[in-house]
Order: sequence, then C-alpha cells, then structure tokens
Amino acid sequence: MSLLVIGTVAFDAIETPFGKTDKIVGGAATFISLAASYFHKKINLVSVVGDDFPAEAIQMMQKRGVNTEGLQIKQGEKTFFWSGRYHNDMNSRDTLDTQLNVLATFDPVIPDSYQHCEFLMLGNLAPSVQHQVLDRLEQRPRLVVLDTMNFWMNIALDELHSLLKRVDVLTINDEEARQLSGEYSLVKAAQKILSMGPKYLIIKKGEHGALLFNAEQVFFAPALPLEEVFDPTGAGDSFAGGFIGYLAATEDISFENMKRAVIFGSAMASFSVEKFGTERIQNLGEAEVDARVQQFIDLVQFDISLVN
Amino acid sequence: MSLLVIGTVAFDAIETPFGKTDKIVGGAATFISLAASYFHKKINLVSVVGDDFPAEAIQMMQKRGVNTEGLQIKQGEKTFFWSGRYHNDMNSRDTLDTQLNVLATFDPVIPDSYQHCEFLMLGNLAPSVQHQVLDRLEQRPRLVVLDTMNFWMNIALDELHSLLKRVDVLTINDEEARQLSGEYSLVKAAQKILSMGPKYLIIKKGEHGALLFNAEQVFFAPALPLEEVFDPTGAGDSFAGGFIGYLAATEDISFENMKRAVIFGSAMASFSVEKFGTERIQNLGEAEVDARVQQFIDLVQFDISLVN
Repeated sequence: MSLLVIGTVAFDAIETPFGKTDKIVGGAATFISLAASYFHKKINLVSVVGDDFPAEAIQMMQKRGVNTEGLQIKQGEKTFFWSGRYHNDMNSRDTLDTQLNVLATFDPVIPDSYQHCEFLMLGNLAPSVQHQVLDRLEQRPRLVVLDTMNFWMNIALDELHSLLKRVDVLTINDEEARQLSGEYSLVKAAQKILSMGPKYLIIKKGEHGALLFNAEQVFFAPALPLEEVFDPTGAGDSFAGGFIGYLAATEDISFENMKRAVIFGSAMASFSVEKFGTERIQNLGEAEVDARVQQFIDLVQFDISLVN
Repeated sequence: MSLLVIGTVAFDAIETPFGKTDKIVGGAATFISLAASYFHKKINLVSVVGDDFPAEAIQMMQKRGVNTEGLQIKQGEKTFFWSGRYHNDMNSRDTLDTQLNVLATFDPVIPDSYQHCEFLMLGNLAPSVQHQVLDRLEQRPRLVVLDTMNFWMNIALDELHSLLKRVDVLTINDEEARQLSGEYSLVKAAQKILSMGPKYLIIKKGEHGALLFNAEQVFFAPALPLEEVFDPTGAGDSFAGGFIGYLAATEDISFENMKRAVIFGSAMASFSVEKFGTERIQNLGEAEVDARVQQFIDLVQFDISLVN
C-alpha cells in the first residue's frame, strides 16, 4: 500500500535548556517520513525546498526508502526556516523567527506515479494547500490523516472546517482540541470535534501521552517516562509517521489496529525527543524499535480478572 | 489482614466552577477508609474530631465496615476545618481557610485491638504524628504506605526525611516529587526519592494518571478521561484507599499486584471526583466498581506481538 506524505521539509534552529543548534534539517514531512520508514517501505514525499537544502539530507531520506520524486527543489530560492526556544519545562516554546521562503508559493504537485495512494498523511501546512492535495488526487485514499495547529485555527478556520469533512483522522494537541471545540474537558472536546467530520481523533498530550477517540471508544497511550526530553521538536510528527506507517504496513484500519499504531507512533516520538532534530530517528535498528515498544507494553500492562 | 488507617477526619467547604458547599464531611482518613472499604473489611481508623462532628457521618463509616474505636471525640472542641477554591482548570486551588482545632493537639492513641496490623496507611498529617504512630506499634506492619504534601516539605523536611526511612511506599504528586528531589524529570526524581528510603514510589499526576516506581520497574496507570471533574478534593486519598485496601484484601505485595492496586486506586479516585466530598464513594455497588475497572482495562489494553 503506498503512503503519500505531504508537509514541510525545512531548516530549524533550536534552543533548549540543554543547548542550541545552528540550522539543522527538520520539517513535518521529514519527521513523518523517517518515522514511517521503520514500518513501511513505499513512502512518497511531496514537499518543497530551496537550493540551499543539502543533497546529503535528501539522500539520507532516500536511503530510508523515501521516494523524493515529489520533492521540488527551487533554484535560487531558500528553504523554509523556523527558529524556536523551549522553556525549562519543555512543554512551551517561543518562536524566534519564521522565514517562509519557498513555502510562501508552495504548489503541491503530485507526480503521476504517486496517484492511487491508499494512505495519505497531510502534515501541518496551510489548510488551503492540504485541500489542494486532496483535489489533485484522482482517487480518494482509503485513509486520510490530517495534522494541523492552532495557527490555522486563528487565521483559516473556515478552510480548516471544510477540510475536517474530508479527512478520516485528525491529530492535534490538547490545547488545540480545546480551542477547536470550545470545550475544556477533552472528552467533550472529542465529541464535538468528531461531529465536525473526522471519524477518529488523536489528542496528543506531550509528556502525558495521547488519546485516540472514535464515536464509541477511547484508547490511551502513555508517553514513555524519560530521564530527559532533549528536544521536543518533531515529536508530534514522529508520532504521526509511526502511526500512519504502521497502518499502511499492516493494511488494517480497524480501531484495534489503530491502538497498536498509536503505540508505535508513541515509540517513534519517544526516540525523536532524545536528540536534536532528526538525529535519533535517522538510523534506528529494528531490535531497538522492538525493545522500545516492549517498554510501552511493560509500562501499562496489568492483569486483572473481574469475577463478575 | 487488618488495615490501620490514620489521618484527618474533617469538615471541608469547597468552591469549584460548578458550585460551592457549606461544611461537608471530608478529611484524608475519611476518603481513605471509604475507598478501602470496597475491597477490605477490617479497617481500623485512628483520628480525632470535635463534638461538632455529626454522629451520622461516623455511623456511615461504620456501616461501610470501618472500626471507629480509635476515633477520638473531643468534648467542647471543634473538628479540623479546611476551605478551598478550585481554579477553572481544576488542577490548582487556593486555600481560603484552615482551622486546626482538635488537630493542633492530636495525640494518635492506638487501641490495643489495633495492634499487630499488617497494613498501615499513614494519611497526610504532620510527620511527627506519623512517626508517633510507628513508634507506638508493637510490631512493624508488613507494609507501610505514607502520604504527605509540600507543606511538610517546607516546614518539617528533616522529620519527613527520617520518616521516609521507615516506610515502604510513598505517595506524592508530581510537583511534590520535583520539590522533594530537586529534579524536574520524574524518572530522575523517582530514582532520588527511592534512594531516600521507600522501596516503592507512587507519583500522582491528577488528570494525567499515576506512576508506580520501584528500583527496576515503572508502571503507568491513566486517569479515566471524564466529561467533568466536579470536585477533586479527596481524589488522592481515594486513590490511596483503593490501593492499600486492595493490597490488604489480596495479601500480596508483589510489584505485579501493586500494579493492580494502582488501577483499583485510580478507579476509586475517578468516582470520588464526580461529586462533592465523599458523596460518590459512600455507597457504590460492586457491579459499579467492576464496570469502572473494566473501563480502565479497555482504555489501555492493546495487543502487540513482537516477532523478534
């Protein structure tokens, strides 16, 4: 089953209490593709960079099985750049700089060979661009997962609402779920958001784990208690990549299998935060991934037999 | 196995975004004893009230199987009173009034019939009083669980440190774990706190669940996602009561059984917050408790078979 990933491929400059980086490779689609690559091998990327983007970074993605035919390289233009500083608690951050560059005029061209994909991950981008991708697919994918953020709720809410009617799964964080629904309780927020279109909702709570809802069921996956969260950048995208990569690999979109996908996504997020940028998720071993998933199993597994 | 519970029996006056109460029955030992009573039937209470405390409330506890021989009733004195107001997020609160009354001179007398208890729950009280209880037991219980709070870390840290060497399990919340250890990461905090004495540590994270640590293992139990948290007062004590009540009933203090006890404790906490004070946990049915535990099972249960 082919998986189409659309989102930013970017430069980030990050400050955390543990240190700071110069420009390093980042972007939603980068994290999503890399995380998905541990589960699925047919990943088709649509994104845009400038000619300042390093060929080695593209080769690194290709080595992980990511098809970059749909990655536009704009000559004479610059790659999208984001810079941010995390606070001591690592749960909040300030944006220091945003330079849209190539992203300002991004036209998401879908190569012919990418058509008829069965799984689509719409990484965080302007809802208008996410709409365009859906418009340009000759056939609706079997599963469409949308990631978005509070920024688009503030400036493009109508486009976001119409987009919600076109997707199957929405992933947002707890504050965004509260903003989108106007409800403080996440249970009530989930009910409202599911009535806006998506059949499934994933609420990401950072170090407090993630909740998966459909109309009747709820599943909770914890975050792994880590000694240090070194750099949270890309954690949500790594989660999404592990989630959709696992679903695409198993070709099973039942709620039971989505639970497993949430665990694999959580495992990828837990790796991602251990080093700056994509460093940790560029080159994991299979045994390492399995051992991490086993940690999640051990963390929440208990055995209660109710008599009644 | 007899279970000895020591802590406050009190009046609370509570304001939440959903309403406010006049003086209602509260106190750590009240919540602990009631929650434990759903699992264990030999609960011996040590506490103190004034002659203003209603006989019906004592009878209500007795009906739930709580032995109140060790509940001192001070004639001409008043019961401990606490009043607080919860903020909109229900995670933080202001204390509006504290009247120690009978608590100021509380001398925890242990009735002879309470001696040789196998399980001891030291509910939140001055560490000096908690020391006294241990001093007065002829035989060390098989399992001693200690609850405390930041207030005692601020004004009685040395006594608390010496107390930590005398207990098996410590229950505190995440902010208290950070204060006691000086570590932000809860994993690092747990390592430091376990080196202070207790063999087990439970870190309560409110709506974000609870973590159980020993030197080698960690277990996570979620909080149930609720539509509304109506009144968080007593949630931690209800958790502790369910936890130690289940352990006392099963007579099994292995890590595996403590995991189950954490789930039963979480279930009792989830009931407790649904109404003001002890109202919800005074009269639960067995089927209701089982159904709630089943919700926890459904919430976190997944099935992953790793091939490697």
